[in-house]
Amino acid sequence: MLIVQKYGGSSVANTDRIKHVASRVAQCRARGDRVVVVVSAMSGVTDNLIKLAREIMPLPNEREMDMLLATGEQTTIALTAIALHSLGIPAVSLTGAQAGIVTDGVHTKARIQNITPRKIHELLNQGQVVIVAGFQGQTREGQVTTLGRGGSDLTAIALAAAIKADLCQICTDVDGVYTADPRLVPDAKKLEEISYDEMLELASLGAKVMQSRSVEFAKKFGVVFEVRSSLNDHPGTIVKEETKNMEAVVVRGVSLDKNQAKVTLVGVPDKPGVAARIFKAIGDAGVNVDMIVQNISHGSGAPATDLSFTVDKPDLPRAQKTLDALKPDIGFGRILATEKIGKLSIVGVGMKSHTGVAGRMFDTLAREGVNIDMISTSEIKISVVVDLGKAEQAMRAVHAAFLG
Amino acid sequence: MLIVQKYGGSSVANTDRIKHVASRVAQCRARGDRVVVVVSAMSGVTDNLIKLAREIMPLPNEREMDMLLATGEQTTIALTAIALHSLGIPAVSLTGAQAGIVTDGVHTKARIQNITPRKIHELLNQGQVVIVAGFQGQTREGQVTTLGRGGSDLTAIALAAAIKADLCQICTDVDGVYTADPRLVPDAKKLEEISYDEMLELASLGAKVMQSRSVEFAKKFGVVFEVRSSLNDHPGTIVKEETKNMEAVVVRGVSLDKNQAKVTLVGVPDKPGVAARIFKAIGDAGVNVDMIVQNISHGSGAPATDLSFTVDKPDLPRAQKTLDALKPDIGFGRILATEKIGKLSIVGVGMKSHTGVAGRMFDTLAREGVNIDMISTSEIKISVVVDLGKAEQAMRAVHAAFLG
Repeated sequence: MLIVQKYGGSSVANTDRIKHVASRVAQCRARGDRVVVVVSAMSGVTDNLIKLAREIMPLPNEREMDMLLATGEQTTIALTAIALHSLGIPAVSLTGAQAGIVTDGVHTKARIQNITPRKIHELLNQGQVVIVAGFQGQTREGQVTTLGRGGSDLTAIALAAAIKADLCQICTDVDGVYTADPRLVPDAKKLEEISYDEMLELASLGAKVMQSRSVEFAKKFGVVFEVRSSLNDHPGTIVKEETKNMEAVVVRGVSLDKNQAKVTLVGVPDKPGVAARIFKAIGDAGVNVDMIVQNISHGSGAPATDLSFTVDKPDLPRAQKTLDALKPDIGFGRILATEKIGKLSIVGVGMKSHTGVAGRMFDTLAREGVNIDMISTSEIKISVVVDLGKAEQAMRAVHAAFLG
Repeated sequence: MLIVQKYGGSSVANTDRIKHVASRVAQCRARGDRVVVVVSAMSGVTDNLIKLAREIMPLPNEREMDMLLATGEQTTIALTAIALHSLGIPAVSLTGAQAGIVTDGVHTKARIQNITPRKIHELLNQGQVVIVAGFQGQTREGQVTTLGRGGSDLTAIALAAAIKADLCQICTDVDGVYTADPRLVPDAKKLEEISYDEMLELASLGAKVMQSRSVEFAKKFGVVFEVRSSLNDHPGTIVKEETKNMEAVVVRGVSLDKNQAKVTLVGVPDKPGVAARIFKAIGDAGVNVDMIVQNISHGSGAPATDLSFTVDKPDLPRAQKTLDALKPDIGFGRILATEKIGKLSIVGVGMKSHTGVAGRMFDTLAREGVNIDMISTSEIKISVVVDLGKAEQAMRAVHAAFLG
């Protein structure tokens, strides 16, 4: 088999961990597999480099940040190759550029445009384990670029697509994808499989296993991958296109996002174009809006509505500033804001073919005495905003109702 | 003027020092100069990377060591570019590969084969300061290479030749080249100028300012360079082809090498081919031999001589082991070895046209009561081996006689 294995920063945090990674790769070799290993920077290294740059200048140039940060993964690939040599296994490290990873020129968040895996194939054919630096690439003009957050996962999945690997393993510090965060829900179970769309919903809902863009890339190119532990040999979770079989399960997972804040604008004039102006201004301020709910207002006087939406907590001050400036112009009433909310979501492709899922969720919450603030649904997801103080209790109850 | 400036590891040891380097480059810009800056890894970084590699494997693969060590300079170029940006000066960093430095494939001690400075010229023409990673290059096949000890000096001098710079400044932690090590000879004076050949002799005699290979490269390509401080603005020492003028000075400098050991083989059979066999065996053991002296032996019996030579101190155990193995075969008597020697040298192109220099040196030593163990001369150098305990006193006396 041709396998791409990715190891993140905590899996290569020191030379002992790197030796452990090498011994795992050695096991694959002993089974006759050919292996491409993608590694991140040793944990802490990237943060330290960012700290050094900011000591010099608060907002360093992005081209130079890429030049700087790319050294982190370059260090790991060399050490990983040496660790394989110490086990008597032939191995060669390649930077992103050497591996043929060509990106656009958007420094610090470049997109992979093309991969020319000629060198990788050549080395694999020589019997080498190939160690590729994650998170980085090179423009056609030879500029060093980095792929942004979750970039090493993306490198692994893109390489797996380019070399037509039989298997792509994302080795991390968890055993796989769970029905819920086990720290919050002790009953949470590891999933054997999950569809790309479910994984995407969970990623965007605050489950921290993987960044959405890597999953999107895998979906686009049909790369089946496994999320598994770098510490043990338990089977992980397979992420793949949904199958008919998967729809038998109504809810795949439950997630809780505690990183959102809610804003309510009271008495927004009920006229065409008002909402557009509000959200354009907020978008222009770089604030990401998630859920939006508009309630009809039954006050006296001119027709008006209450408008609620959620934003990422760190963006709240910026959102408020923007709204304060907009208030006299548009003429809404008070601006209410709270950070004391949790967004609880259930996700499952089975919802498409099952009815009554929302009702069952709301009923469960009602029985727990949890009030629902906002509701938002998609074809495979139902999200509700609840009081932060009751969010974890609500999560456990919903998990028990659907997955217990 | 077009200037190449090189800053070593201690000059870029932390972000404050890097900011200081940037402010020096800014001064050049303010004078209207165009500047290419060559930097080393921050001091300690390279040693730390070597330590990490050796934690994994005592003798790591050299290709991977190059991949690993090249990150040190890459880190510094990015931080230096950012430091220039913080002063409002446009600057772009380039790895050795990006700067067009092509080397052979001898990892960890590659030789520069060719420099294509197209990118550097392009950036200079845009008004950028160009920051180039010292110590590194790339083979024609795209392998990362490093140039070995003193590699950043070599990068600076080779770049100065390739871009036809008006000036090449090697900025370091000393003010220039001195007539002797000021820590040993308080009277030592900074030289205004020195010839390549004198600099080469001093380098090979243990003066630690620069590695021989960089000076050889400068001599070969006629690159005039200046050794100067990175901390102050004092003029440094100009290193260049010798001029008629320089010959007026008989002795340019005095050096003392305390890192040699002396071996004497007593009663070596005085037959053709014996010395050749001895030095071939020692050379095969990787031991570098410096001075060799053979004395006629006046004993009775078969004709025999005493053979003395010096080796680098760390090589002494290997030399002894080799000689022990050779002893029964060749049939010499005792092997005497001592580390308690110092090699004192005077260097000057003026010796070519002045007589009596050796006599004056020996006379000075005799008056100090310093016994001479071995003597070796070249056209521009006289070296003597003396007892280590008297070596520094001897050095000061010789310095006073010729340069006081």
